[in-house]
Amino acid sequence: MASLKRLLVGSPIRTARLAHERLTKKTALAVFSSDALSSTAYATEEILLVLAAAYVAGQGTSFNKVIPISIGIATLLVIVAISYRQTIHAYPSGGGAYIVAKDNLGTMPGLIAAASLLVDYVLTVSVSIAAGVAAITSTFVGTRFAWLDEHRSAFCVFFIAFIAIANLRGVRESGALFAGPTYAFIVTFLFMLGYGLLRVYLYPGSVPPPNDADLKIAEGYHPQMLSLFLILGAFSNGCAALTGIEAISNGIPAFKQPESDNAAKTLTWMAGLLATMFIGTSVMAHFYNIHPHEHETVISQFARQIFTGYMGWFYYLVQATTAAILVLAANTSFADFPRLASLLARDRFLPRQFSNRGDRLVFSNGIVLLALFSAVLVFAFGGETSRLIPLYAVGVFLSFTLSQTGMVVHWRREGKMEQAKTSDADSQAGVKPRARNSHWRKSLLINCVGAIATFVVLIVFIITKFIHGAWVVVLLVPLIVMMFLKIHRHYVEVARQLSTEGLNKLRPIDHLVIVPISGIHRGVIAALEYAKSIAPHHVTAVYVNLDDDVTQKLREKWQEWGSGVNLIVVASPYRSLVRPLLNYVDRVKRSSPNAVITVVLPEFVPAKWWQNLLHNQNTLFLKGALLFKRGLVVTNVPYHLEH
Amino acid sequence: MASLKRLLVGSPIRTARLAHERLTKKTALAVFSSDALSSTAYATEEILLVLAAAYVAGQGTSFNKVIPISIGIATLLVIVAISYRQTIHAYPSGGGAYIVAKDNLGTMPGLIAAASLLVDYVLTVSVSIAAGVAAITSTFVGTRFAWLDEHRSAFCVFFIAFIAIANLRGVRESGALFAGPTYAFIVTFLFMLGYGLLRVYLYPGSVPPPNDADLKIAEGYHPQMLSLFLILGAFSNGCAALTGIEAISNGIPAFKQPESDNAAKTLTWMAGLLATMFIGTSVMAHFYNIHPHEHETVISQFARQIFTGYMGWFYYLVQATTAAILVLAANTSFADFPRLASLLARDRFLPRQFSNRGDRLVFSNGIVLLALFSAVLVFAFGGETSRLIPLYAVGVFLSFTLSQTGMVVHWRREGKMEQAKTSDADSQAGVKPRARNSHWRKSLLINCVGAIATFVVLIVFIITKFIHGAWVVVLLVPLIVMMFLKIHRHYVEVARQLSTEGLNKLRPIDHLVIVPISGIHRGVIAALEYAKSIAPHHVTAVYVNLDDDVTQKLREKWQEWGSGVNLIVVASPYRSLVRPLLNYVDRVKRSSPNAVITVVLPEFVPAKWWQNLLHNQNTLFLKGALLFKRGLVVTNVPYHLEH
Repeated sequence: MASLKRLLVGSPIRTARLAHERLTKKTALAVFSSDALSSTAYATEEILLVLAAAYVAGQGTSFNKVIPISIGIATLLVIVAISYRQTIHAYPSGGGAYIVAKDNLGTMPGLIAAASLLVDYVLTVSVSIAAGVAAITSTFVGTRFAWLDEHRSAFCVFFIAFIAIANLRGVRESGALFAGPTYAFIVTFLFMLGYGLLRVYLYPGSVPPPNDADLKIAEGYHPQMLSLFLILGAFSNGCAALTGIEAISNGIPAFKQPESDNAAKTLTWMAGLLATMFIGTSVMAHFYNIHPHEHETVISQFARQIFTGYMGWFYYLVQATTAAILVLAANTSFADFPRLASLLARDRFLPRQFSNRGDRLVFSNGIVLLALFSAVLVFAFGGETSRLIPLYAVGVFLSFTLSQTGMVVHWRREGKMEQAKTSDADSQAGVKPRARNSHWRKSLLINCVGAIATFVVLIVFIITKFIHGAWVVVLLVPLIVMMFLKIHRHYVEVARQLSTEGLNKLRPIDHLVIVPISGIHRGVIAALEYAKSIAPHHVTAVYVNLDDDVTQKLREKWQEWGSGVNLIVVASPYRSLVRPLLNYVDRVKRSSPNAVITVVLPEFVPAKWWQNLLHNQNTLFLKGALLFKRGLVVTNVPYHLEH
Repeated sequence: MASLKRLLVGSPIRTARLAHERLTKKTALAVFSSDALSSTAYATEEILLVLAAAYVAGQGTSFNKVIPISIGIATLLVIVAISYRQTIHAYPSGGGAYIVAKDNLGTMPGLIAAASLLVDYVLTVSVSIAAGVAAITSTFVGTRFAWLDEHRSAFCVFFIAFIAIANLRGVRESGALFAGPTYAFIVTFLFMLGYGLLRVYLYPGSVPPPNDADLKIAEGYHPQMLSLFLILGAFSNGCAALTGIEAISNGIPAFKQPESDNAAKTLTWMAGLLATMFIGTSVMAHFYNIHPHEHETVISQFARQIFTGYMGWFYYLVQATTAAILVLAANTSFADFPRLASLLARDRFLPRQFSNRGDRLVFSNGIVLLALFSAVLVFAFGGETSRLIPLYAVGVFLSFTLSQTGMVVHWRREGKMEQAKTSDADSQAGVKPRARNSHWRKSLLINCVGAIATFVVLIVFIITKFIHGAWVVVLLVPLIVMMFLKIHRHYVEVARQLSTEGLNKLRPIDHLVIVPISGIHRGVIAALEYAKSIAPHHVTAVYVNLDDDVTQKLREKWQEWGSGVNLIVVASPYRSLVRPLLNYVDRVKRSSPNAVITVVLPEFVPAKWWQNLLHNQNTLFLKGALLFKRGLVVTNVPYHLEH
């Protein structure tokens, strides 16, 4: 067991090495942007799936709407990215939505942001893995490996386990593992978009007419005319492209110094790449007449169209890198979920075990929990991306809104402080205040725009997706917040009860010692001697009578070996050993309520584990039962056997 | 959990009621003879399956041999039954093969007998249940429920669980449960034989010609001419009819007084019924030209032929009662296996848990173990009777032989004692010794014949069935005996090590107390006070440094709350709490090898179970690790939290 763990996870790392586990900008881009960038693999398709409802209803041009919708989403993306740059500079030690909302808006908004993020991290893993597996199965459409499609859920679980193990090994090694696929995806994808654009420009006539066999509509939509509601639904679906953009602001402490500058630069690069790739995909889908299909992804369809002849091998490269980045995109959550859980644990809103660093300096418990939840979710939804999408992004936009609103409050507060300071200084120096204040005013404005934009999208999302699955998240977030509060109350209560405050000097201890015995042997005699050394004149041995003859023999032997201790024999009509002993202890407690009662358990420990099977585990049961009795001290006096 | 157990098993029964749980002769016949009688359901068929090898090879008359073979087996049955009557009178407290062989031949023969019986009890359950399920599926041959045949293994496991639960409820209730089906089977079966005989006498022309479609040959046999080897093989298969005949001699203490007389009478009845029904079945199979088939049992075939027209319903009655008795036949083993296991446990050859009576006064552990083993076996052999038969009966005949040989030695010894006594008395009174001695001489002769007969059959069985599966048992019995001996050695060794013999007065205890602490709170202070009360000037508190700042604060607080106890801070480069504490304890042990070291563990106990999830289980891990260190006393000082 232990050696299997070593093999998978590696040897333990010293605490002293903690500060050195940092990422360069290039590696950080790979680790933190895989989620955001990879969403280009499905965001366009999710828009088309909703527009298909109008196409089927007879509006042949409805798919054109993918371009304005995509531009709208990209605009939102830019607003959010600029907003987050403010956050990164204001919170260099990590400005996740939880911290920003808690600092500026109060505990409850902070917890709401935290709950929605936790839900979202789980969904990120599930959605990315499901989409990655879809990229793989799309490749095999029409081949004799088409049956792979039936085992999607199993593939998903395999990949989740793979990523979890990579993360349990530690963040530096994860970076090394993920840089290759991320950059391969970026280069391949950009080349595909460029090549595709060039091709349609050079040979505009070579694009085949749309193929409407197996046309797929988003689950929950029926054929209908184009309406604002339908367009907003398509827009909401496409907003999945924005998920993951906040990853960098959560992970600032993992960057090399200067952390904030490096993080902000990385965020700009990421947002630029994401906007380019996402709009590029939508434009390409439009130029090449791609319609969403049951058994093949949109990306797979146009890559297949573009790369023909001697470029055919490039199709496989696109599919492979898409699958790789999607599978690895889940990694963002494996960095963020445990980190957020550890923050919540530190603040006593989650079990404190989440704040422990494991052998490899990572928050192992959070990694394992995330892997479990996302595996269950993927299994429950049969590994199908489009069924998970309506649950997705509610949490993200809720946390975006809270975080941006928090930043607005942050800048207002900072502004007031600065005004107070400068007006002091100015009144001394006579300078105009305007120039100095411009920084916080600009930031306030940016975050204000961000907060309003994300709030509007959140409302749109809830309205258009509520019945398709968003209700689950709307229900889940308050439940999780309630759990946070319940856990918090417990910890506060424990701290209060254990506090040394108001503790008076303790009275001297009045000992009473009870030794349950199963016969007379060396182990028992050792225990009796030990008991006598604690409280020389207050020891009682207790024996449960199961057989009168045996009991009589014991009484006789007691004269010689009882060490002068008083022997009490209790009856057991139902042959139980534990029950009568507990009753006896209760009687003693009632008759001496102020004494400290110690139960000394003689216990012989076999030399080999299997030998335990040859002995009644009565001592174990008794120990378990005594644990729940108040005010009892339990002492084990082991007697180790040889051979 | 506990209430489910109550529902299935019933409320506990007081030990005082033990003596009252006895069976009348009629109930005992039902409980102990179901195994033996039920074997008529498959014994004849197993003979025919071997003879089929010659029939297929062209010897049309080979099936005739079933009659002489059956008569041979019935003769053997009478010899064994008479032999066992001697045992019952000589061992009124239960004369199973284990006891008889151990008493008269020594421990090893006793253990061999015990091992073979244990194996056989498991096989009895598997074979009987498999045959019972075959009776049920035979009924549905050719109907739309024929698919039931595919789920045989599942049926078997269901029935095993049913019987196990009935037995866990207690022997009296089992008797009530099983009397009905057993007597219904006896009456139905005897009526069928009588009716069948009358019918063939009145209308000899009505018997249809044999149906050779789906003809089945015993597994492992190929078509061959009739030979002595083949006839002995058929004979061996048929000997399955004798299994279970020893059940009564094992169960004498369950009879009402006078136990031996009642048991002997019951045995005679049982043997008479068994011989009649077995020979009857074979004769009937011959008269009605029944050949063994793949999908229908022999009994089912001729019951179907005999009961036609307005008697058709009787066919279903035969199948139902056959199935019922077969399924319940397993019950014999559920009475005997736990009883033998408890005897072995009492003699320290099996874990002592097997000698504990459960809530309902039965040996629950044995019942559960038997159910598990037989369920696994039935599953492994796909619930097919004829594949299990070659494993069967080796064990029975081995134990028969050992038991009868033991009885021969027993009578010789008794004879010698009596001769010594009578020759003393005779020399005083001048009476001829002959008349008085006749009793043991007769018994010796009977058991001698029994021993030789069963030994010869055992050899025949091993020779004819070795390659077909008997080798498993031949291999298993020595392995089980080795396990018995290993367990025995352990218990003897434990008793020796724990014995008070040679124990000198102990030196006064030199205490050293170590208190591992995780901080300063009320629970820790209570533990420190407790530690000081044991050894006022020898207490050390140990703290594991995980964070220098936190440790520094602790040191400051220690001045006020440390109760004057010395505080040791140990380092932990890999963030483990348990490892550094264990190392510290080891250092103390090395420097004070003669002291008794007590580790006092402060432990706070949450008010609700789920709250344990919110706390590190370090105390638990530490307790577990300390258990394996020699010569350490571990004391838990719990601090109970509220809410």
